[in-house]
Amino acid sequence: MIISMASDSSSSFFGWVAKDKSAAKGNLDFTEFTPKPFTDDDIDIKITHCGVCMSDIHTLRSGWAETDYPIVVGHEIVGNVVRKGKNVMDLEIGDRVGVGAQCYSCLNCDQCRKGNESYCADHVWTYGMRFADGAKSNGGYAEYGRYPASFAFKLPESIPSEIVAPMLCGGLTVYSPLKRYGAGPGKTIGIVGIGGLGHFGILFASALGATKIYAISRTRSKEADVHTMGATDFIATAEPGWVENNLQSIDLIVCTANDTSIPMSDYLRLLKFGGTLVQVGVPEGGLPEFDLSPFLFNNVHLTGTIIGGRQEMKDMLKMAATKKINSWIETKPMSNVNEVVQLMGDGKAHYRYVLVN
Amino acid sequence: MIISMASDSSSSFFGWVAKDKSAAKGNLDFTEFTPKPFTDDDIDIKITHCGVCMSDIHTLRSGWAETDYPIVVGHEIVGNVVRKGKNVMDLEIGDRVGVGAQCYSCLNCDQCRKGNESYCADHVWTYGMRFADGAKSNGGYAEYGRYPASFAFKLPESIPSEIVAPMLCGGLTVYSPLKRYGAGPGKTIGIVGIGGLGHFGILFASALGATKIYAISRTRSKEADVHTMGATDFIATAEPGWVENNLQSIDLIVCTANDTSIPMSDYLRLLKFGGTLVQVGVPEGGLPEFDLSPFLFNNVHLTGTIIGGRQEMKDMLKMAATKKINSWIETKPMSNVNEVVQLMGDGKAHYRYVLVN
Repeated sequence: MIISMASDSSSSFFGWVAKDKSAAKGNLDFTEFTPKPFTDDDIDIKITHCGVCMSDIHTLRSGWAETDYPIVVGHEIVGNVVRKGKNVMDLEIGDRVGVGAQCYSCLNCDQCRKGNESYCADHVWTYGMRFADGAKSNGGYAEYGRYPASFAFKLPESIPSEIVAPMLCGGLTVYSPLKRYGAGPGKTIGIVGIGGLGHFGILFASALGATKIYAISRTRSKEADVHTMGATDFIATAEPGWVENNLQSIDLIVCTANDTSIPMSDYLRLLKFGGTLVQVGVPEGGLPEFDLSPFLFNNVHLTGTIIGGRQEMKDMLKMAATKKINSWIETKPMSNVNEVVQLMGDGKAHYRYVLVN
Repeated sequence: MIISMASDSSSSFFGWVAKDKSAAKGNLDFTEFTPKPFTDDDIDIKITHCGVCMSDIHTLRSGWAETDYPIVVGHEIVGNVVRKGKNVMDLEIGDRVGVGAQCYSCLNCDQCRKGNESYCADHVWTYGMRFADGAKSNGGYAEYGRYPASFAFKLPESIPSEIVAPMLCGGLTVYSPLKRYGAGPGKTIGIVGIGGLGHFGILFASALGATKIYAISRTRSKEADVHTMGATDFIATAEPGWVENNLQSIDLIVCTANDTSIPMSDYLRLLKFGGTLVQVGVPEGGLPEFDLSPFLFNNVHLTGTIIGGRQEMKDMLKMAATKKINSWIETKPMSNVNEVVQLMGDGKAHYRYVLVN
């Protein structure tokens, strides 16, 4: 493989920069931006692919909080190492690597040592935050990216770049809770929301050997798709009786829906005694009125997780390679990014867009 | 001990009967009521003591749902066996027994066999429900009570009746989650709401050997009391900064508060990474807007439990006897019940009233 070196790329890169919240409407500019200062622990990556995650849209439109513009988003980044700091031992120039939604943690605290790097108090997400030196973190809608090598993962050769890219955030975000909360043989799993994250929920629950997998969506428009992905059952929440007909049926629900109108109390009623719902979608506000009775009378549990740890990333990539898991994606040239963020914001992805440089 | 037999007591008992929701204002009538038909599995109890639980008030005023009047409430019942069915092997006439908030389960289903009788689909609470034969269940504000012997527990001799009575619901309700969710040495426990349930939370967390125990109340009016009970720390939620000053400090919170204005999202912020809040107070409605971020960014868990199982009841009674746990109570003649339900409804209990026949 021939890798073009980033020529004199240390002080600025080119990428698709958002200047204000109009960016979410397709107003990204291809222009220069300043990466973090290069350190001995960093690598530069020539980006070949970047998945489009709903987090990108939330951030572009300042949906969760006011975004620190200008910003380059994108955190499902695949590319090749073109420069490495002298402390970087595990990666070589030319290696194909992936960077997900997190690019830094202290690696030293209690959480980091237990594989919970995404809960490290000093975490830096791949875009929209600041490193300790004050430099902004910027994402992968770009030609090049610069990240601490500790959060760049060498990718298994057998998985094509466009297939592996969306696993780096979307895949890990559902793999981690499925694994932590015991998805596997004998278990009935529910996946709420059949979009980018949800489709990975079905693929990974299936790969982990779950006995039954319920896809839970508003309508049945994706019913044929989810059975192909591995779902055994379907619940359409637009249909009357969906709660009563499925009461206490599911051991573990992973909820990828991220709107504030989630019928959370009803989802909790689908859980068996002692079961758990793990929220992974991040809504742009709080939920409305909330009924405690499923907790009290059926001892169900509500929790949440945010992406996953480094070891989980490695385990997921290995499983994806071994079990030949195929992301359901549509590729687009990165130069079409302005069209793609609009489509993504409008819920048009089937199931994930991947931008290709 | 001389036990007066219930003379011809099979078709009616006398007790304090609520006819409508005015009962909660002190309008209970001492009159006849019809117990369930006596079966070979039942016992009759001559009631000596009955604790006053907030559930009694919720039920008297139809706070949770429309109550099936007429009703006798009270589910912290202590008395002596005066009649037993021929299938009853473990109890003898004269035995001092306790009956808590549950008086029946099938004893045969998955939940019952695992010690989770309070989650049995066929459970009957001690008052306000119907047995399979259609008969109403009635509680312990009465001279006599009739219950399936399987939910009458022989009481350790060393614990006085007025001390053990409120443990039968109030004690078990907090003992069960403390035990199930690992309260013990090395753990930091929080108890929200320092009333009848909450004071048992502190007493039992202390008896279980918890290293730190936070009492969490609106004001500091009970601060001296809770330290005597065994609390090591106090959080007053009426004081500014109570969340920020105590962020991520507690492993396990048991929340006994039962109003719909519970600041649940803030309580969840007090939990350490991966910690659990167990709701045991049953509010008369849903909670207002609810923030998912403590779940997502600190992997905390929200769950709930309802009373506890039969083995847990026995374990709690044994521990209470061994460790000489003293309920904080005020006794009142049962003939004063109309005054007591008003005081209880007004939050005047310190910390539990026990009615004495």
